[in-house]
Amino acid sequence: MKRITFLVTAITTLAGAVAFTATASRHAAAQEAAPIFVKKVPAGYRDWKVVSVAHEAGELNDIRAVLGNDIAIKAYRAGKLPFPEGAIVGRIAWSHVSSEENNRTFGRDQSFVAGSPTAAYLQFMVKDSKKYAATGGWGYSSFDKDGKPTDEAAMKTCFPCHQAIKDRDFIFTRYAP
Amino acid sequence: MKRITFLVTAITTLAGAVAFTATASRHAAAQEAAPIFVKKVPAGYRDWKVVSVAHEAGELNDIRAVLGNDIAIKAYRAGKLPFPEGAIVGRIAWSHVSSEENNRTFGRDQSFVAGSPTAAYLQFMVKDSKKYAATGGWGYSSFDKDGKPTDEAAMKTCFPCHQAIKDRDFIFTRYAP
Repeated sequence: MKRITFLVTAITTLAGAVAFTATASRHAAAQEAAPIFVKKVPAGYRDWKVVSVAHEAGELNDIRAVLGNDIAIKAYRAGKLPFPEGAIVGRIAWSHVSSEENNRTFGRDQSFVAGSPTAAYLQFMVKDSKKYAATGGWGYSSFDKDGKPTDEAAMKTCFPCHQAIKDRDFIFTRYAP
Repeated sequence: MKRITFLVTAITTLAGAVAFTATASRHAAAQEAAPIFVKKVPAGYRDWKVVSVAHEAGELNDIRAVLGNDIAIKAYRAGKLPFPEGAIVGRIAWSHVSSEENNRTFGRDQSFVAGSPTAAYLQFMVKDSKKYAATGGWGYSSFDKDGKPTDEAAMKTCFPCHQAIKDRDFIFTRYAP
């Protein structure tokens, strides 16, 4: 919970400072009426292909795999923007933990592996230009390890930050060949 | 090249200190006659499913995805050991680089992403109990970004370290649900 609070606070602060322009305010108004987030974990996501991997240090302290469904991966590999309808990009975040076993093998403390699921274990962006028109054509979602979605108020902080990369169709993660 | 040299040195040192028992010596003798490593990158590996992710700090300074072919993933998920014939576990290692773009969004320096391929970009373990009988039933391989395999002498240092986890069929990485 603490981690979610931090993340939301960080994003909200940034949104307040940078992204809450008149445009964002209009979008926020539109969000009152339109759905902006996804309440169900997409089926089969654990079988999806890898887009890339990342590590968030600091309070988040996680290590993550970013995955894509077939529509998303195909678009990524073709360098095609915007992503087509039905594309889903997801990420799994595990706690970033030291591996004593690996360190023994390497003979030094250097190895970190995926530990338990984090508070914001799963996140997805689902492309549906009509349904999620108010948030750039993407629905956002975040789930804990039990599949419980993050509350709607917190989800409203996603889009303002993702606007920073509107020219890449709002997706931060680049494909790692 | 420096990184490979470091890795090989680290592994060799460890092997010298810990794993070069009389058993290992007999295996080394057997290796003279039998193939112990794989010279071709397995086809389609980039489409494989995720086993887990990891970060090696220090000299290696990489972030990695560990993937498995369908045979390996099925065995992992079933918790079945030893891995069946044909199982392949692979890992891709990219350099661990700070993301200025992500840090701007988070409002603090915390984000690391996959950069360029490392010197030991791809590594695979291929299960074939007969062919690789001399090394616990697994063939080992390592490739740079151009698909050039690491030389055979260096590959002989793989098995001695992996013997530390013989009870998990020589595979270090655990499946991350």
